[in-house]
Amino acid sequence: MNPKEQLEEYTRQVEAVVRSYLPPEEGYHKTVLEAMNYSMKAGGKRLRPLFMREVYRLFRSGDQDLRQERAVEPFMAAIEMIHTFSLVHDDLPCMDNDRLRRGQPTTWVRYGYDMAVLAGDALAVYAFETAAKALEFSDDPQAVGRCMGLLARKTGVSGMIGGQTVDVELTGKPVDAGQLDYIYENKTGALLEVSMMIGAVLGGAEESQVEAVEKMASCIGSAFQIQDDILDLTGTTENLGKPVLSDEKNEKTTYVTLYGMEEAREAVRRLSAQAEEILEGLPGDHDFLKALIDMLITREK
Amino acid sequence: MNPKEQLEEYTRQVEAVVRSYLPPEEGYHKTVLEAMNYSMKAGGKRLRPLFMREVYRLFRSGDQDLRQERAVEPFMAAIEMIHTFSLVHDDLPCMDNDRLRRGQPTTWVRYGYDMAVLAGDALAVYAFETAAKALEFSDDPQAVGRCMGLLARKTGVSGMIGGQTVDVELTGKPVDAGQLDYIYENKTGALLEVSMMIGAVLGGAEESQVEAVEKMASCIGSAFQIQDDILDLTGTTENLGKPVLSDEKNEKTTYVTLYGMEEAREAVRRLSAQAEEILEGLPGDHDFLKALIDMLITREK
Repeated sequence: MNPKEQLEEYTRQVEAVVRSYLPPEEGYHKTVLEAMNYSMKAGGKRLRPLFMREVYRLFRSGDQDLRQERAVEPFMAAIEMIHTFSLVHDDLPCMDNDRLRRGQPTTWVRYGYDMAVLAGDALAVYAFETAAKALEFSDDPQAVGRCMGLLARKTGVSGMIGGQTVDVELTGKPVDAGQLDYIYENKTGALLEVSMMIGAVLGGAEESQVEAVEKMASCIGSAFQIQDDILDLTGTTENLGKPVLSDEKNEKTTYVTLYGMEEAREAVRRLSAQAEEILEGLPGDHDFLKALIDMLITREK
Repeated sequence: MNPKEQLEEYTRQVEAVVRSYLPPEEGYHKTVLEAMNYSMKAGGKRLRPLFMREVYRLFRSGDQDLRQERAVEPFMAAIEMIHTFSLVHDDLPCMDNDRLRRGQPTTWVRYGYDMAVLAGDALAVYAFETAAKALEFSDDPQAVGRCMGLLARKTGVSGMIGGQTVDVELTGKPVDAGQLDYIYENKTGALLEVSMMIGAVLGGAEESQVEAVEKMASCIGSAFQIQDDILDLTGTTENLGKPVLSDEKNEKTTYVTLYGMEEAREAVRRLSAQAEEILEGLPGDHDFLKALIDMLITREK
């Protein structure tokens, strides 16, 4: 298989893991369960659980303990629940007021404003209920507990929600370099970081390795985000599936508007090189992860 | 000290523990931190962490390990964060549309609709970040991880949020006995149950004892809720701090409207007797917990 076919195959596997942890739609509270699953099944690249599993495998290569191998699966589902919860709440009328996501009605349009708030809340909490199931597979409850705490920290005010707050507050206002960096690092970077950190911790990585993985993920996240800004100005509507210049029309500050196109392209190159250099220092087989980083950064949509 | 003085003293202690775990209000994301703390400091009886600590102490009486003793404290703060998150989101315009809580503007009135959604989300997640701190004190990471999972289960679709969903869906519609029971057990009961269960698990209770504690908490929660329904029809506005008949005016089905006043009073007696009978079978000193149950059930506001 070439890397692209490998990515497709791995994405199918990850999708199956994520779906196996969705709640059954039964009981008096059926509506909120349907709304949760509707949001979870709306698709997406499943990049976060994919990266989590790949980093986990770096540290456990050659391991034959199949029960232990499954310890990462509840966290793979959990990180997608967290990501999905954030999308459900971001789409609400009081936030971005979006009616469509990936061509489908958003959760609040389909199930109502109140039920979308509750479904988002329920997904955020179900992520931790799901993650706790790793205790059944892992021989290291300390690592599982630590990963649950990391997941919370990078999701909450010190991570994704903190970044989202600043993004909301600065909408329509001038944004300086420090603020933009904070938003990128937290709103989009934090979940990617914790995905890979959880993979490392559950895989039994040493402290210095967990730190290296966090730094690598931070570089990948920033490069991905800046590439997104570039595509927003250069991509075709057809490739992107959304109108180009959508950010500029909203007069949104991005890396490109702040530093110019040339420096943006240079930053993507610099950050991916840095990520791949860190990857070189980690154990296991790097081929697929290196190809994945390349694919993400040279992507045209 | 008599039980009332003891309750006041313990509530002060619990309040201090809860406040010690609130986040500092600094950084780019200062606003959401302020909104979180505004909601957390708005008061309340702090009954859930109080019950958690008392049940914990039942199982650890005579224990002199002070570090271990602190393992319950992060969870005491966490349960209040979960309770507060639910109030912040319940007050939103798309839910109950309440502008005042305990005489103060609700979070969305004070900080805006978007920030109230984010502050609620942030509190829900911060509860798990906080709970994970118990790993620093406890010698039993398996128990800490299990308690985090229990907290998520009783907060989410299989608990509080499930109950809230059904309550929202049935607003203005006829409610049958099964539905009312589901709402009571989940919307108001689940958090009280998990408070006491966490106290038991961290205290080292056996499985059968954890189950007994869950049942005891369920009885206390139901008795408390039915007493609330009774007071809504019989209490004076002065004592309750809210207009009596507020539920009846909203044509809301309660235990009293469904079964009548006499059966409601009988249910409160029956449920408290059952709770106290279970308490008798648990280890440790029961005096304060018994007095607390009596105070809750004979309360007039």
